[in-house]
Amino acid sequence: MTVESDNTYMMLALEEAHLAQMRDEVPIGAIVVDSTTGDVIARAGNRTIELSDPTAHAEVLAIREACQKAKSQRIPTYDLYVTLEPCTMCAGAISFARIRKLVFAASDKKGGAVESGTRFFEQPSCHHKIKIVSGIEAEKSSALLKSYFKAKRTK
Amino acid sequence: MTVESDNTYMMLALEEAHLAQMRDEVPIGAIVVDSTTGDVIARAGNRTIELSDPTAHAEVLAIREACQKAKSQRIPTYDLYVTLEPCTMCAGAISFARIRKLVFAASDKKGGAVESGTRFFEQPSCHHKIKIVSGIEAEKSSALLKSYFKAKRTK
Repeated sequence: MTVESDNTYMMLALEEAHLAQMRDEVPIGAIVVDSTTGDVIARAGNRTIELSDPTAHAEVLAIREACQKAKSQRIPTYDLYVTLEPCTMCAGAISFARIRKLVFAASDKKGGAVESGTRFFEQPSCHHKIKIVSGIEAEKSSALLKSYFKAKRTK
Repeated sequence: MTVESDNTYMMLALEEAHLAQMRDEVPIGAIVVDSTTGDVIARAGNRTIELSDPTAHAEVLAIREACQKAKSQRIPTYDLYVTLEPCTMCAGAISFARIRKLVFAASDKKGGAVESGTRFFEQPSCHHKIKIVSGIEAEKSSALLKSYFKAKRTK
């Protein structure tokens, strides 16, 4: 496989978000890509309800799978694509895993911690330097989240 | 079992920290207690190296175990005891799990996010109200961490 565009990888993350919605989970998806080969190493959607696990966000599940495959808690040549701006928990996990590049789709002014909230990676206490790209396929991710929460409200 | 003092529970968390050190992991331990019965529901020490999992902090492992036993991602009558001030990742997990009370031993000015750094639970974006107690058996926890890092440096 060759290295694809950020939009191509984000479409795979959006597929995971769709699958999460079909499981009645919040529709957020993530994939981890080896930046040196372009290979997709891990893919996951939210499973907090299914697993009774408040840490089972798409990013955490994808990072854990990629690290287990790499047999290392650090994957500094790997990139993470996620359909929503990560929260503080996931930003911490991204930092501990030494992810090379973070690409996210929609912003999350309420729960996000990258461009919003505590802006985790800009804090003096964060020593992990990371490339950040935002807004890739944001409309598709926002539309999916809106439809999910609208359906929840009318249930 | 009856509800014990914070110090008694923290000593159990310190046992987990000791066990982590014996596995050559950073010596941090955590336990989850059902505040209504006093029962210890889950106990864990760091396993990030063993599991190749950057999210395998003591707090995350203990919370995941307690939630799985409760078959719920929310455990609002449960308390968490941990030997070091939680980082942002763990603070996020604590909030998502709706932990009732957080008790920690030593402060962590470098990586902590409760009294230090971003002070997670004081942020306007954090809507989870939690009781926080700090400094319980702090000297024992600090001594353990210091001996671990001193041994690492001289290796």
